Amino acid sequence: MSKRPVTSIDVARRAGVSQSAVSRAFSEKASISDETRTRVLDAAAALNYRPNRIPSIMLSGRSGMIGVVVGGLSNPFYAGALVHLTTSLRKAGLQVMLVHIDDALMLDAALDQLAAYRVDAIITALAVGTRETAKALNDLAIPAICFNSGITGPGISTILSNNRASGARAARVMAAAGVTRPLWLAGPPRNAASRERRRGFFDGFAALSGGARVTELQGDDTYDSGFSVIRDALARGLRPDGLFCSNDLMACGALDALRDHADLSCPRDVVVIGYDNIPQGAWNAYQLTTFDQRTDALVDAALAILAAVLGGTERASSHTRIIEATLVVRRSTERGAAPSP
Amino acid sequence: MSKRPVTSIDVARRAGVSQSAVSRAFSEKASISDETRTRVLDAAAALNYRPNRIPSIMLSGRSGMIGVVVGGLSNPFYAGALVHLTTSLRKAGLQVMLVHIDDALMLDAALDQLAAYRVDAIITALAVGTRETAKALNDLAIPAICFNSGITGPGISTILSNNRASGARAARVMAAAGVTRPLWLAGPPRNAASRERRRGFFDGFAALSGGARVTELQGDDTYDSGFSVIRDALARGLRPDGLFCSNDLMACGALDALRDHADLSCPRDVVVIGYDNIPQGAWNAYQLTTFDQRTDALVDAALAILAAVLGGTERASSHTRIIEATLVVRRSTERGAAPSP
Repeated sequence: MSKRPVTSIDVARRAGVSQSAVSRAFSEKASISDETRTRVLDAAAALNYRPNRIPSIMLSGRSGMIGVVVGGLSNPFYAGALVHLTTSLRKAGLQVMLVHIDDALMLDAALDQLAAYRVDAIITALAVGTRETAKALNDLAIPAICFNSGITGPGISTILSNNRASGARAARVMAAAGVTRPLWLAGPPRNAASRERRRGFFDGFAALSGGARVTELQGDDTYDSGFSVIRDALARGLRPDGLFCSNDLMACGALDALRDHADLSCPRDVVVIGYDNIPQGAWNAYQLTTFDQRTDALVDAALAILAAVLGGTERASSHTRIIEATLVVRRSTERGAAPSP
Repeated sequence: MSKRPVTSIDVARRAGVSQSAVSRAFSEKASISDETRTRVLDAAAALNYRPNRIPSIMLSGRSGMIGVVVGGLSNPFYAGALVHLTTSLRKAGLQVMLVHIDDALMLDAALDQLAAYRVDAIITALAVGTRETAKALNDLAIPAICFNSGITGPGISTILSNNRASGARAARVMAAAGVTRPLWLAGPPRNAASRERRRGFFDGFAALSGGARVTELQGDDTYDSGFSVIRDALARGLRPDGLFCSNDLMACGALDALRDHADLSCPRDVVVIGYDNIPQGAWNAYQLTTFDQRTDALVDAALAILAAVLGGTERASSHTRIIEATLVVRRSTERGAAPSP
């Protein structure tokens, strides 16, 4: 391992060609004879040379890097979405500069770094979009694409799951299963997607003739909150017969609280619906009915917006795409099914 | 949002200073009067200018970017490790260029990209290290740090959990719980960490006087394989009373297979131990005894090696650090505990 990186000048000297011939040899579109290309590639292999993107970033102002800002990878939904996004960006010839932030207050510093590396755009899957996030993205003057957030502004595009319609659909599924004492377990109040799911669920029950009144409890999108909030509610004597949780992690916690309860069983006494379709919801202990946000469609939409924005004419434009979630029916809402073990 | 990025020349012109004064104003260590710095920062704020790292990458050959190559984010252990690593690298002033690969064959192309962006080092948490991986990293002449892999070579450092000692410890825990029919559920054969855990577990039982003979079954590190392999084994009449799984995902699957079985209960009839301490193992449905690899210690070790390697004198050196895993005891091995619900 040499300390000084091998440069295109070294390769040019060894191959007996000009430096620009080296650059052309590594560009698929460039015009160069097969013989010269072979000489360059042989010399490069002998010297273990790899082409350098940095000079072209200097010249073009285009880095080919996309800043991806995530905040909740402990939720398997976000980890899965990150895999999809990273893989798709690579296929589009783009690199991912990853920033993980636990706290919206850290966002400013993170965005400064991304700007310093001249990322071409920012994609954020932060579960929570605050006014500060919106302002920071606005100030940055780099196109941004946000998933499931309420952040808006020039140059900021948004991709949403159809949260409200899904909430209404959850109400209809429950009504059809005979639910009369529905309960909504909310995510944090600042979670815009959770607020929309709530609204759809409440409106859905209100719209049904003889619509039941929905009880509301507050969670924080974690398994632990789903478990403890439902365990405590049952201990207080609350007896819901239908439970719509703002995400799957809380629904898994709620199912475990129900499992521990001597007199209640899912789906016999309570049906449960989540949101996200995380792998754990399909585990045999849970078999959770849920809404699949269709990560592939969310990511495809992001790539399409990115192509339009980076195409050059639409840098400051704002796009909104709504992706329809799919209901995945499993044991937790199947009244005819055997109770969970 | 302007199409042309604001440059340091624009800022210099507005502030009435030289371009080099602008650069000094943004460098904490540079010598510059308070008055000039204030003028520059005011002009920068008015123009929404952000300093550009790219020219300094050109000059120094140091990008401040670390290539992080991951391959199994559907395992919550890797997602958690990535969060820790990304956060710690940021604190050290480094950026993460993330590459996700599903297939070792894709590694070569990924490494070419990382080299083109002149990453200062590569950290890989690929569960699987093949001979091709080792060769590709070797050829690259960029320092690499690998987690739990069997990859070696000049400039390649390795950080390992003490897999073999943990395997032996699992055997002792089981023997103390009275296990006489132990079963080992292996990860994929190419998983070096799994092979070491196996060896420790087998040696551990062999070393105990009257050591029981260990039955071996083959999984693939997924929940589904843990569930189906154990379900099928029980259906064939196999009756282990102790089950050591090469990772927690398979152990959760195994626990669900046991839960479905009419005559067997964990921990009453079978004790179960996993590896990784993923969040799901602590969920109430599982309460899995496991080995915590101590992601914080693994990441600290990586950062220490990185500092030595990037310090300049040790670029081609190879380090090995072994981090002792901690046993986390939960219900799945507590014979005195109530059976799982």
